Amino acid sequence: MAGDKGSSCGALVLLNCFVSPFGNRVRIALKRKGLPYEEKSENLAAKSPLLLSSNPIHGGKVPVLLVGDKPVCESLVILEFIDEAFSGTGEQLLPAAPCARAHARFWASYIDTKLPGCAVRVWRSPKGAAAVEEGKKDMVAVLKTLEAELGAKPYFAGDALGYVDVALVPFAPWFLTYERFGGFSIATECPAIAAWAERCVKENEFVAASLPEPEQVFQFVCGMRKAFGLD
Amino acid sequence: MAGDKGSSCGALVLLNCFVSPFGNRVRIALKRKGLPYEEKSENLAAKSPLLLSSNPIHGGKVPVLLVGDKPVCESLVILEFIDEAFSGTGEQLLPAAPCARAHARFWASYIDTKLPGCAVRVWRSPKGAAAVEEGKKDMVAVLKTLEAELGAKPYFAGDALGYVDVALVPFAPWFLTYERFGGFSIATECPAIAAWAERCVKENEFVAASLPEPEQVFQFVCGMRKAFGLD
Repeated sequence: MAGDKGSSCGALVLLNCFVSPFGNRVRIALKRKGLPYEEKSENLAAKSPLLLSSNPIHGGKVPVLLVGDKPVCESLVILEFIDEAFSGTGEQLLPAAPCARAHARFWASYIDTKLPGCAVRVWRSPKGAAAVEEGKKDMVAVLKTLEAELGAKPYFAGDALGYVDVALVPFAPWFLTYERFGGFSIATECPAIAAWAERCVKENEFVAASLPEPEQVFQFVCGMRKAFGLD
Repeated sequence: MAGDKGSSCGALVLLNCFVSPFGNRVRIALKRKGLPYEEKSENLAAKSPLLLSSNPIHGGKVPVLLVGDKPVCESLVILEFIDEAFSGTGEQLLPAAPCARAHARFWASYIDTKLPGCAVRVWRSPKGAAAVEEGKKDMVAVLKTLEAELGAKPYFAGDALGYVDVALVPFAPWFLTYERFGGFSIATECPAIAAWAERCVKENEFVAASLPEPEQVFQFVCGMRKAFGLD
């Protein structure tokens, strides 16, 4: 990192929970740039004092990237930070042209505005609740919109994985959980998104190394549902 | 704009509605940089085909900045675009250091995640609804959090107006409307935010020139409430 703007930033510590799509965006971005970092695993039912004091505004939400002793919060903000602080290291997530950067940010914002809300209704509602069906319907619409934006490109960014891909792909290990609780198949409803998710993992070692197994996510969610008294 | 990265972008046209806090962020950013642009006023009850085709994903939400024939959507994305495409023109909204940029983006994201939701409950609920009281309470909490972040600084960015100031100040002309429908006083609850809002307008001609009068906003909202059958 010699000569890098980020070199004076201090050691990088990621506060994360292994199933978090948001935290795993940061894993992917750090691994893609080959930046050394330490990960501290958080139990969201009993958050560490470090996490609570690092993101007090959002009640200790993960992820937090500690840069020396400075916390950087909010996953998309962290992705931009990594691109800017370590612009001399590895490939950039965002493209160079202002219009293309705006386009990528628009779609990352779309994902954050639309997808988590549907997802929570699917996996965190009581069995048989109307919210499950509504969440599933909305999720399929969101994924179809993303499918149209992907088009015939291998990645949202074009020929190689970029900002929008990193924003979306950590939801892929959750697809199995959405399917089991929602009673539907993402591969059937949105085949191009399913193929894209597989491509992201198969063709990018740093993605595969950053994401949990779908079955692990399902077991984790089953545990949470029991804790919430849903099952 | 000679030599500016943005000079090849083409003419700038802002699709806006004069009361929109989001659209007025873009007005402020454009005027601050002294960029020539045309504004097209949208009637949100009968959106123009241009607006609908420029932001189809969000159903013709304002603002849209047309850059030549390319639409840039989402107000914070547009602010970043203006900083990046016209980096050679006028002052930058975002600071230079990666950590400071992340800090500013965190607070702009906080505003967008928290404030509009409370605001809508205050001004768009039936008179006497519990949602009004809840919205008011949440809004005061959000403004107090922002007040703590502002601290003793004249602006969120320090000595001069920056990204977070531009994200927040277009809500100031709405304060009167929130106060009338919520039955509270922002100057009493959050005196430092009220003083900051006044400072932004008094000390920055480009802010004053970008914002509607509070009474105009109130009359506009009264018209909307009638159209929605609320009054």
